[in-house]
Amino acid sequence: MTHSPLDPQQLTADLIRCASVTPQEGGALVLLDKVLSAAGFTCTRVDRGEVSNLIARWGDKGHPRTMGFNGHTDVVPVGDTAAWTVDPFGAEEKDGFLYGRGATDMKSGVAAFVAAAVDLVQTTPPEGAILLTITGDEEGDAIDGTTALLDHMDRVGEQMDVCLVGEPTCPNEMGEMIKIGRRGSLSAWFTVTGVQGHSAYPHRAKNPLNAMVRLMDRLASHELDQGTDHFDASTLAVVTIDTGNPATNVIPAQARSTVNIRFNDAHSGAALSDWLRAEAARVARDFDVDIGVEIKISGESFITPPGPLSDLVSAAVEAETGRKPELSTTGGTSDARFVKNHCPVVEVGLVGKTMHQVDERVEIAQIHQLKSIYGRILRDYFDQG
Amino acid sequence: MTHSPLDPQQLTADLIRCASVTPQEGGALVLLDKVLSAAGFTCTRVDRGEVSNLIARWGDKGHPRTMGFNGHTDVVPVGDTAAWTVDPFGAEEKDGFLYGRGATDMKSGVAAFVAAAVDLVQTTPPEGAILLTITGDEEGDAIDGTTALLDHMDRVGEQMDVCLVGEPTCPNEMGEMIKIGRRGSLSAWFTVTGVQGHSAYPHRAKNPLNAMVRLMDRLASHELDQGTDHFDASTLAVVTIDTGNPATNVIPAQARSTVNIRFNDAHSGAALSDWLRAEAARVARDFDVDIGVEIKISGESFITPPGPLSDLVSAAVEAETGRKPELSTTGGTSDARFVKNHCPVVEVGLVGKTMHQVDERVEIAQIHQLKSIYGRILRDYFDQG
Repeated sequence: MTHSPLDPQQLTADLIRCASVTPQEGGALVLLDKVLSAAGFTCTRVDRGEVSNLIARWGDKGHPRTMGFNGHTDVVPVGDTAAWTVDPFGAEEKDGFLYGRGATDMKSGVAAFVAAAVDLVQTTPPEGAILLTITGDEEGDAIDGTTALLDHMDRVGEQMDVCLVGEPTCPNEMGEMIKIGRRGSLSAWFTVTGVQGHSAYPHRAKNPLNAMVRLMDRLASHELDQGTDHFDASTLAVVTIDTGNPATNVIPAQARSTVNIRFNDAHSGAALSDWLRAEAARVARDFDVDIGVEIKISGESFITPPGPLSDLVSAAVEAETGRKPELSTTGGTSDARFVKNHCPVVEVGLVGKTMHQVDERVEIAQIHQLKSIYGRILRDYFDQG
Repeated sequence: MTHSPLDPQQLTADLIRCASVTPQEGGALVLLDKVLSAAGFTCTRVDRGEVSNLIARWGDKGHPRTMGFNGHTDVVPVGDTAAWTVDPFGAEEKDGFLYGRGATDMKSGVAAFVAAAVDLVQTTPPEGAILLTITGDEEGDAIDGTTALLDHMDRVGEQMDVCLVGEPTCPNEMGEMIKIGRRGSLSAWFTVTGVQGHSAYPHRAKNPLNAMVRLMDRLASHELDQGTDHFDASTLAVVTIDTGNPATNVIPAQARSTVNIRFNDAHSGAALSDWLRAEAARVARDFDVDIGVEIKISGESFITPPGPLSDLVSAAVEAETGRKPELSTTGGTSDARFVKNHCPVVEVGLVGKTMHQVDERVEIAQIHQLKSIYGRILRDYFDQG
């Protein structure tokens, strides 16, 4: 039996034409279900809430030698349509680029690993299994997406030995970076409540801003760490302070601020929360005001320490691109933060420059190159088995 | 020749019925012109810009023994008319109070010194002169009000030996306080401009809030002084900090704040401005951001040190009320800040509790008592001459 190989460029274009803005499925998962089923994958839709997700397995369920891929077909909104020079869902080709929302983040990544997996099972069926988990909720709340897929896997006995996430990982050049971990992210909202008064008589009031600036200065000046083996230093950013007091002769009753922390493996969200609350309590006591603190932990930091999986991926990237990729832990959050609870996970993808932007586009050559990287990783993984 | 004495209560009511919200003259100065002219005063309207002012002299121009009075007939807006239980310009009498906008601030004060002055010149004409300066721009910008009157006086050779300002000066009880000075007031607006960026990469951005909280903490923590002979300690209040950044993952480009300083005679507005700009420049340098500073000096501090004038006023207040008044320098600004450039000035008036409020009202007995105080001050002043 011979097959014409699945073209990852064509698949990327077809996926772009599905207007799958979170949480709209937009036809993207239906298309992948069809393509993968035709190639012999067992496909299961794992929808939860208003979100659609797809799990596709080739080979035996629970096989100890199962390579996983994770990705998402949902995209962020188009934004100002008038600012686009092309139809955001038109998948137009121009000067070697394919244009459209999701072109880099990450319909090309999904198309590349789907094409690589289909290629492998159709040409040299491996000893083992391939498991693709594809969600429609990565750009949104990420509550009913990859988490729902992993919950489903636990329930039905699906497993992965290792997993690659196909998010864009290269800042500028193909092959220059893979991600072996991510920092955690936490946001905290502070509300300082004092006592309003006339600015001519501050001793009769309790100015919440005095406590606010002291607390924010303490937080912003604090060195969380100097970096760890695989991570840059953790960072804290005061992103807003607001009072909304139009009167120069009035001391306000209340002020609010928001702080965002990106933290490495020297910290946990819980320990940072304790620290923030303790700092707030200390300043509240010093200034005799009330300070409310609300905290949301978007993700804990995680690391897949350099080892067999990153070696495997690095070697493949270098073989295909000529570049030895940096093992990075920079950047925001991705669904790897969920996958890491299941198995070792590494992120490897193409150049992400235009993600979330107007005229998002992917260099067509990179789609093919990424498919080759994934294909080589798959072959090398199963050869080692 | 006999006269029926001018009733300060009736005159207050008549003035309240003039809707003289700044800068509307509302008939108030026309009324005073008529009353004072009839009593032998030489009245001159000194209008400037959209503001009306009146100067009224009894006796010889430039007489070295000239007692001055200063006051204003303009009032602040009514605010929420529906919240008033009376017509704000109706001058209603109820339970011993006279109601209306300006009842305490300060049509009763003007009526009291006009009645006292008219009474004196009609009953026991003094050796010397009385000069009344009455403005329609105290509650507004105060640019074309008392300043215009003083400019006019310089031009035409009018002068005062000493001057009383008839603003309310008593917090609770008649006679408990006179003011021999006022703190100065200065507002400063700070705009910190950094470089916007993603909160995951603060080192690629320059967070203006880091500089803002350091600067505001430095200013708010600084002890300007511990008070001087006649003044409480100067105060600095950070009244607002605003950013308006809704995104927790974005470091903002800019933040703004406002600071209000009330300062005593240990400072000048210019020296404080220099200090604020130096602090801003220092923090701007430390944080490598731009900090814009705009400053408005509303008034310098001033003091008429305890001496002959305050002794004269205190004795009269004590004789009429049984209370020895505190010589205070508390409170906001008044037109005394302009008069002090011309001659020693003291403020003495009735209880100011309801000024600027809904249902502003004055205890009728206080109007008569204030007229008696002013009358006694006038007699004692000329007796000493």
